[in-house]
Amino acid sequence: MKIDILTLFPKMFQALDESVLGKAQAKELLNINICDFRQYSTDKHHHVDDTPYGGGAGMLLEPQPIYRAMDAINKADPNFKRVILMDPAGQRFDQSIAQNLAQEQHLVFICGHYEGFDARIEKLATDRLSIGDFVITGGEMAAMIMIDALARFVPGVLGNQDSAYSDSFSAGLLEYPQYTRPAEYRGMKVPEVLLSGNHQKIAQWRHQESLKKTYQFRPDLIKQADLSTSDRQFLTDLQQDDN
Amino acid sequence: MKIDILTLFPKMFQALDESVLGKAQAKELLNINICDFRQYSTDKHHHVDDTPYGGGAGMLLEPQPIYRAMDAINKADPNFKRVILMDPAGQRFDQSIAQNLAQEQHLVFICGHYEGFDARIEKLATDRLSIGDFVITGGEMAAMIMIDALARFVPGVLGNQDSAYSDSFSAGLLEYPQYTRPAEYRGMKVPEVLLSGNHQKIAQWRHQESLKKTYQFRPDLIKQADLSTSDRQFLTDLQQDDN
Repeated sequence: MKIDILTLFPKMFQALDESVLGKAQAKELLNINICDFRQYSTDKHHHVDDTPYGGGAGMLLEPQPIYRAMDAINKADPNFKRVILMDPAGQRFDQSIAQNLAQEQHLVFICGHYEGFDARIEKLATDRLSIGDFVITGGEMAAMIMIDALARFVPGVLGNQDSAYSDSFSAGLLEYPQYTRPAEYRGMKVPEVLLSGNHQKIAQWRHQESLKKTYQFRPDLIKQADLSTSDRQFLTDLQQDDN
Repeated sequence: MKIDILTLFPKMFQALDESVLGKAQAKELLNINICDFRQYSTDKHHHVDDTPYGGGAGMLLEPQPIYRAMDAINKADPNFKRVILMDPAGQRFDQSIAQNLAQEQHLVFICGHYEGFDARIEKLATDRLSIGDFVITGGEMAAMIMIDALARFVPGVLGNQDSAYSDSFSAGLLEYPQYTRPAEYRGMKVPEVLLSGNHQKIAQWRHQESLKKTYQFRPDLIKQADLSTSDRQFLTDLQQDDN
């Protein structure tokens, strides 16, 4: 998969060279190209922003440098690409969007920065995505998170291809609590069932803990989950215990 | 504000040294300390993870290195600190949580990585926060985003202290579309009202565009917004135009 990132802060993307994404780039499963679009400014001082028409605080990204950077990307690869604009007004990014974007051959991420961007830049985008209801300084960190989440669905990126599908959310429930050594640490013990060696009991305990955790922390997910009759009974019993 | 970050991937945090956060650190408004908790492993090979009790794929972070890293932080500063665990089961991070965390003197972010962490690590946390309903490789990028969002509320971090409050979400509505030079680019013109010099008309246009955009993209925010009688009339007219 090819990924172009348009940004004014190329050094912010160091995190993409580490861990799972670093390995995916080394294996050439991901080809990430970071483009500082300041180079496309036709202004002699390479300015990329200007004051808003109609007045107001802050500076806005001008359309020109980003349009010219997109021209260069389209010239190098005229095939279809999804162009993702980091936009607080956009659709909320989630696991199904990650999975959907992972099907593409070529993605372009446009990262705004500072106060905002000229609204004409929106016309370049096939997708306008938001990482959540909060304000950050630029789209860079949001783009990195989206790239991490979607890259996990690109075949070969994770050692075990099942992992991206077995984690929290892919199954519609939160993951059960997990424990590793030591069996007791500072007085806190690992639940006995996990040490029992009884795989059937362990699987049942994990499934019920997953239901319990989701019920407690994310009841909205329970409503959408595909539950069995015994799952529903378990949750009804839980609710009665609460009352 | 002091921020400690516990991580196995210190190099991923380069993005905190750029732009607004880089300047805030240079001005000593933020004192960010990145701690590779591998150094606290008592294992001779400095392992920090192990297989899950009860079986299953992947490796889990052990409690010991993170507990010992927290001991060191608590010894250096015994005062109260908020300890934030990056957790997909946690509360969804948003602008009000950012603002709330910005009131603290000392924050600690614990970043898990890979498949997950021993559930006993959760007991260290005062806050368990999620960045959204998707799976990422570690908590590092999520922690960076939270630090960016909350740092904007720390006095002095933004040039104009009003900015953090006037952006999208702080006002409960999405921001109106903005435009800068040139007035026409590739056939796309800036709306005439913005060139009129009539400040009252500009203010009205912006407020209505803000309402329109929020109505179109985020009707859930409209429901919670504090609207005037004329705002409600404007939205009723919009709905009638749609039908």
